[in-house]
Amino acid sequence: MTTSDSLPKNVLLGGLEGGGTKFVCAVGTGPGDIRDEIRFPTTTPEETLARAIAFFRQHKPAAIGIASFGPVDLNPASPSFGFITTTPKPGWAHTDVLGAFRRAFDLPLAFELDVNAAAIGEYTWVPENRALNSLVYYTIGTGIGAGVIVSGQIIHGLTHPEAGHVRLPHDWSRDPFAGICPFHGDCFEGLASGPALAARWGQAADSLPQEHVAWDLEAGYIAAALVNTILLLSPQRIVLGGGVMQQDHLFPLIRQKVKALLNGYVASPLFEGDLSGYIVPPSLGNRSGVLGALAIAQRLIQS
Amino acid sequence: MTTSDSLPKNVLLGGLEGGGTKFVCAVGTGPGDIRDEIRFPTTTPEETLARAIAFFRQHKPAAIGIASFGPVDLNPASPSFGFITTTPKPGWAHTDVLGAFRRAFDLPLAFELDVNAAAIGEYTWVPENRALNSLVYYTIGTGIGAGVIVSGQIIHGLTHPEAGHVRLPHDWSRDPFAGICPFHGDCFEGLASGPALAARWGQAADSLPQEHVAWDLEAGYIAAALVNTILLLSPQRIVLGGGVMQQDHLFPLIRQKVKALLNGYVASPLFEGDLSGYIVPPSLGNRSGVLGALAIAQRLIQS
Repeated sequence: MTTSDSLPKNVLLGGLEGGGTKFVCAVGTGPGDIRDEIRFPTTTPEETLARAIAFFRQHKPAAIGIASFGPVDLNPASPSFGFITTTPKPGWAHTDVLGAFRRAFDLPLAFELDVNAAAIGEYTWVPENRALNSLVYYTIGTGIGAGVIVSGQIIHGLTHPEAGHVRLPHDWSRDPFAGICPFHGDCFEGLASGPALAARWGQAADSLPQEHVAWDLEAGYIAAALVNTILLLSPQRIVLGGGVMQQDHLFPLIRQKVKALLNGYVASPLFEGDLSGYIVPPSLGNRSGVLGALAIAQRLIQS
Repeated sequence: MTTSDSLPKNVLLGGLEGGGTKFVCAVGTGPGDIRDEIRFPTTTPEETLARAIAFFRQHKPAAIGIASFGPVDLNPASPSFGFITTTPKPGWAHTDVLGAFRRAFDLPLAFELDVNAAAIGEYTWVPENRALNSLVYYTIGTGIGAGVIVSGQIIHGLTHPEAGHVRLPHDWSRDPFAGICPFHGDCFEGLASGPALAARWGQAADSLPQEHVAWDLEAGYIAAALVNTILLLSPQRIVLGGGVMQQDHLFPLIRQKVKALLNGYVASPLFEGDLSGYIVPPSLGNRSGVLGALAIAQRLIQS
C-alpha cells in the first residue's frame, strides 16, 4: 500500500465504525494486519461508547479514527463538532461522540460520517481505486447515503452529502407506492431503501425471490440516482455497498439501466463495455467502514 | 484580489470565451483592468479561430485561457485533448481548438469547458466566493450545464459534469410536455432550457409574461435540480447564470421551492433565511466566462 510505505510498520492504528445497529472496533496497521477486533450491539450512548473506549484503552493505538452513523456535525469550527445531531434513534440525538473519546484519550482523533469512512476505506486500501482521482461509495440498506471523494479527498461542503434524499423520476402508474421518508416521501431512500422494499411488498427485502418484479423497479431507482451522480460529479468509479446490495443479481440490472438512461452521452475509457469495472461491489466487503476508520487514523498521523 | 497580489501588476493575460453563438476575447490583468476586448459571431471554425488568434497576436499576453463550448475533451492524455468533440453545431464537430492556438503561439495555454470557466471566474474574482471551499455555477439558457468547484478546484473526473442531463421528477398530469432533449427527452435540459420553454408554450421564453404559469413550472424543475445538487455535493454556494436566469423573478421562486423540497433537511450557517445569499445571480453578470478564461490563464502562470 502506498500510504503504508511511509509509516513505520509497527504504528498501531485504531478504527471505530459506530453504526445504528452495531459498533465495530479494530486495531491494526492495515487490512492485512488487524491485531484485534470486536463488535457489539448499539445500546445506550453511555454503555456503547464506554465499551469502545475500553477496547482502545487496552490496545493503546497511536491514533483513532471514529466513523459514526449520522447525521453528524463535521465542522471543526462548530460547538457541536463531533456530535451525532438530529437522529431519530432513541437516546442518541445530540450525543458528543468525539468528546467522549477526547475525555478518555490524549491521542490524535479523527471524526467522520460512517459512509464517508467507507468511501475512504475503499479508496485508501484498494490499489486500483487509489489510481483514480474520484470515487463515490453508496450504501443502500436500512438507509441510503453516499461518500464522495474528489481529488483523493472526501467532500464535506455545507455539511456532508445526503445523497439518499435526492428526488428521482417516479412513475406513479407503475409504482403507486408513496415512499416512506418522513421528510420527503418518495425521495431515493423513501422509494428504494430496505425498509421501503419491505413496506411496498409486505415482506422483508431479502425474502423477495430474484425473479420478483421488485428488483427491476429497485434497479431502476438506483440506476436513476447513479445517472444523476455521473452527470453531476463525473466520478471515476461507483462502489455500491449496504444490505440491499447483497442481492448480487442487482448489479448487472443496474449497469444495463444506467447505460440505457445515459443513451451514449458519456464517453470515457473508464466507462466502457458492460460497466462491470465502473459500478462495482465493495472490494472490502462489509468492512469498508471500519477499515476506512483505520485509514482516517492513518491520515491523521501522516498529516 | 488574493491571486493578483503575487503577480506583477503588468502581467497581461488573455482570455477567450468561445460560445456557440459568439466569441469574446479579452486581455487584461483582471476584471478591473481589461485593456481590450472584442466579440464577434461564431461562424466557421477556420474564420472564427483566426479572428481570435489575430486579436491575441496583436496584444501579446503572457498566457491565454481558452474556454470553449462543449462537449470538449479535457483529458491531457487523450489524442483529442483540446478538441470540441461531438457537437451537433454544423462544421464544429472534432475541431482542434487548442491545437490551432498551439500552432499560432509559443505561450502557456489552458483549455476548459465554457461553463467550468464561468465557475472559475465567479470563484476567482469574487472575494466572498473565494472564502468558500466549494461552488456550483449553472448556466440555464440555450442549453443547461454546470461547473463544479470543490476545494477550490474544478471537477473533471471521467470527462466533465453534464449536469443539464440529470433526470428529475416529472409530473405528466401537470406538464404533459415530453421534453426536447434528443438523447433523453425529459431530462433537465429537455424540460427547462430556453428552447424547451419556447417549444412548450409556442413563444420565446423572454416573451412570456411574469405571471405566466410557465415560470412556476420552470422554477420547480430548477429547484429539483438544485436540491439534488445540494444533497449530492453539499456546495457552499450556487450561482445561476444564462439567458433564462435573466428573468430575475425566478430567483425568489426557486429559493422558496428549494426550501420546501428539502423540508428542513439541511442545516448550515451558509444555508439560512430566504437563501438569498446561497442561490445567487452571477456577480460578474454575463462576463463570468471570459473573466474565468482570464483566471485560468493566471492560474497557469502561477503554477
